[in-house]
Amino acid sequence: MADEKIHPVTFEAEAFSTGKMRNEIKVHWHEMDERHDFATDEGAALGGEGTAPPPLAFFVTALAGCLMTNIRMMARSHRITVEAVRVRASAKWLRKIEGRGPHVADTEGFHMDVEIDTDADDAAVAALLRDAQAGCFVEHSLSNPANLTHRLKVADGWIDV
Amino acid sequence: MADEKIHPVTFEAEAFSTGKMRNEIKVHWHEMDERHDFATDEGAALGGEGTAPPPLAFFVTALAGCLMTNIRMMARSHRITVEAVRVRASAKWLRKIEGRGPHVADTEGFHMDVEIDTDADDAAVAALLRDAQAGCFVEHSLSNPANLTHRLKVADGWIDV
Repeated sequence: MADEKIHPVTFEAEAFSTGKMRNEIKVHWHEMDERHDFATDEGAALGGEGTAPPPLAFFVTALAGCLMTNIRMMARSHRITVEAVRVRASAKWLRKIEGRGPHVADTEGFHMDVEIDTDADDAAVAALLRDAQAGCFVEHSLSNPANLTHRLKVADGWIDV
Repeated sequence: MADEKIHPVTFEAEAFSTGKMRNEIKVHWHEMDERHDFATDEGAALGGEGTAPPPLAFFVTALAGCLMTNIRMMARSHRITVEAVRVRASAKWLRKIEGRGPHVADTEGFHMDVEIDTDADDAAVAALLRDAQAGCFVEHSLSNPANLTHRLKVADGWIDV
């Protein structure tokens, strides 16, 4: 489209293993030049030391937070006053093990129940929620097969794995 | 398969908007009965107050942390001693705006450069990395179109949106 504007949104992470299962992860939002430090771990049942939440807890935080942020960012252009937003999200995966393993991941799905505190009528609020879904980067990445690549460092450089 | 075992992995989040763009998110890992509290926000440029990292920073933390955790969990069954793991991850999205908006999300892709500190040979380490990718729930959810549903609370109950 002649009047379409496209802005990149780029996040980079630099992550190191530290404890048994602990990882320390430095995140950089390129366009904003914002930096944030995180840590993940697992509980003792999975060989960790419980010093930080597990990676999947960060994932559902991103999922719920992304949609809620979009609802509030888009409320103004929808001319809707949003007093508050409440989301209950669920993420369901399956860990499949054949014989002696290793396990393989499978995804059952994601669901969000959304409550938006506003005086606007139901149709207007539903339109806002649809636009917020379309504007949410996490939802887009989950709804479409993503381009996901890896390289492994070997003795003489990098190989695709 | 006769000997296939399937274990559910279920995360639930209960999230509330608090500040201008801030969200407070309580996460519950159902099977482990583990609870973790998070907050997200945006910087002033996006109408927030910068009290917490943005949702997408949690997303890349989950992406890198999930793979790294799987590498270390699976090292034993691969009979590989892993001294350390380092991952550089990038997540690239596009924010597209047609005319006066609202914006629509698009995903360019995800890449991870993985370094595994070990005495094992390159082929064995590549096999470990492939199994870790297949075992990572975040990677599975990104690689396949997910079942992602929403309901909105309206005056007389819930509607699918």
